[in-house]
Amino acid sequence: MIKNIIGNSDFIESLRGKEATFLLALSNTQTANIRGITQAGIPGKIYLTPTLDGEFLCTGEVRSLDNVPTTLKNVPTPALLSRAVHLLHPYKNIELLDLGLEVKPKIEYFKIHDFGFAPSKSIALDAGINAIEIFQKGLDFAQKFAQEFDNNEYIILGESVPSGTTTASAVAQALAYNCKDLFSSSFKNVPNNVKDQTISNALKNIKAEDDLFQILGKVSDNMLIFNAGFILGLNNKIKLILAGGTQMACVLLIVNSILKTMGGEFETSNLALCTTKWIFEDKNSDIKALLELLDFKINAYYSDFDFSSSEHPSLKLYDEGEAKEGVGAGASLIYASLNGLEKEQIIKKIESFLG
Amino acid sequence: MIKNIIGNSDFIESLRGKEATFLLALSNTQTANIRGITQAGIPGKIYLTPTLDGEFLCTGEVRSLDNVPTTLKNVPTPALLSRAVHLLHPYKNIELLDLGLEVKPKIEYFKIHDFGFAPSKSIALDAGINAIEIFQKGLDFAQKFAQEFDNNEYIILGESVPSGTTTASAVAQALAYNCKDLFSSSFKNVPNNVKDQTISNALKNIKAEDDLFQILGKVSDNMLIFNAGFILGLNNKIKLILAGGTQMACVLLIVNSILKTMGGEFETSNLALCTTKWIFEDKNSDIKALLELLDFKINAYYSDFDFSSSEHPSLKLYDEGEAKEGVGAGASLIYASLNGLEKEQIIKKIESFLG
Repeated sequence: MIKNIIGNSDFIESLRGKEATFLLALSNTQTANIRGITQAGIPGKIYLTPTLDGEFLCTGEVRSLDNVPTTLKNVPTPALLSRAVHLLHPYKNIELLDLGLEVKPKIEYFKIHDFGFAPSKSIALDAGINAIEIFQKGLDFAQKFAQEFDNNEYIILGESVPSGTTTASAVAQALAYNCKDLFSSSFKNVPNNVKDQTISNALKNIKAEDDLFQILGKVSDNMLIFNAGFILGLNNKIKLILAGGTQMACVLLIVNSILKTMGGEFETSNLALCTTKWIFEDKNSDIKALLELLDFKINAYYSDFDFSSSEHPSLKLYDEGEAKEGVGAGASLIYASLNGLEKEQIIKKIESFLG
Repeated sequence: MIKNIIGNSDFIESLRGKEATFLLALSNTQTANIRGITQAGIPGKIYLTPTLDGEFLCTGEVRSLDNVPTTLKNVPTPALLSRAVHLLHPYKNIELLDLGLEVKPKIEYFKIHDFGFAPSKSIALDAGINAIEIFQKGLDFAQKFAQEFDNNEYIILGESVPSGTTTASAVAQALAYNCKDLFSSSFKNVPNNVKDQTISNALKNIKAEDDLFQILGKVSDNMLIFNAGFILGLNNKIKLILAGGTQMACVLLIVNSILKTMGGEFETSNLALCTTKWIFEDKNSDIKALLELLDFKINAYYSDFDFSSSEHPSLKLYDEGEAKEGVGAGASLIYASLNGLEKEQIIKKIESFLG
């Protein structure tokens, strides 16, 4: 079932029966190397997470993990959910956006758009991103993409960026949104000390005279900036689902700040955010409040999917709040509902990955 | 299961696996205000039925009904069936045709084609329709629609017009078809006195010198005329399912009369009528006999779907003949069969609307 977070159901209902292309934005930031900041991945191999997520979504295999079984037991990446949906009702297309990966996904036959970005540095020091360049590449890519896209279809834009929620929170605070306690984390017991310390260090690097893109260059990650450019580049011409939780909300806050700086109207009727119930119900973040900070109208939805009827301990972690969103899981579950899939089918398929 | 009414199974079999666009033709006629003529809707709010049907089919919500819960308990509109099918195997597209509504559907994101028609008056006096204009707009719309339509897909053309079966019966009699007892009603115990009296009044308004369109202007409704124009405008270029019972049969009788008047060949290989078992088995009407009045060949089918395995009292009304067809229910059930849906899935989904 699809539920409203903000706005009404009409946008999402209009997508029933339409075909979707899944774009997965992948990047690494050295922020993820800060000990204890994320559990999105295998300890010591966190940097591989976006690479493995991309491989698994496309092929059902994790290839860049040497000497490790190719199942994802005990690694409850939300890619499991998106992959299950893809098996039951395939996306028309999956394309990966390499926005600065340590390790390229080992995949043939799938488009991997390479923009030549390096992984960004830790925001605790200075992410060292050329934000204008990345933003511009997002804009350009969207414009080219829209030209060749059938506008009876829609785009689902997901992400996999370890430690992304910390970065998102830092960005939103740096842009002076009143949102300190509105951000999520992949942890249940959010390690506020590590996150807060990192954010606090990041904010210290910002100087009063820094402009918007200078700020983003210091405290952001490549995905956040690129996706903001992508949204503005599409310019409402194609229906776009931002597939994610507080990180995608941060992308919208960046768009909002850019619009405030540059002036100019922005039509958002073809834009929505879709996420999971675990994000919507998270006690440690408030996706709705984040979206209410925007000066433009936005539709946002969550899937009421959960694992209450599953016995699998790895999946129970979701219902316990240990994993919440990523790799477009929420939007995938909504895409599943839009195409007649039932909860039990999806759970069965996900369980089949775990053995 | 799909069963033949007339013709063979080849046309409908050729549609398996193809995508469909659902066009829902909506209009009001003041004929529906005659006390006791229809039960298609909420007493005192019958005029809202097409509006609510359109809203519910598109969004799953009835929005134009103030102070009423948004469920449809005890209002067993056939829109429940079409919506259930849409949830389980979505139409590629739903578009509404406003052919003269009292209240516009409160929907965003779905195309609502507005032709500027007013609701028609009661046929008991004189419907007062500019039939040539409406017919011409149906023709023009179809021609434009066909140009942009992928002809590997097909159209399902449904309707929601309260008191439509009375009007249809009046039209067919006015056009001198021998069909007095061949028409259906939304009632089980058809109120023949009210219907017959209304039809008899309508027929009295017709003068010997009236031509075909003058007759239609007096005793018809906007939907019947527009759809006749639509069929002729498509000119067999696109596969078209007329989704309905005796009202859609009447549309075909109008087409038949126009062809007789104007002369000219008409190819119908891409045209079929699809309806429900409740219409096919109705003791008070005879869809097959109506279709046999046509001078051209037509394929017609019904779905053998029923609620025999459901315990829900509102749904039992269908099997008892209290509700039979509308909002493209029969064609939706056939579309469901064409796409692998099972009866029990559909029943479960419909029951989920009723609580």
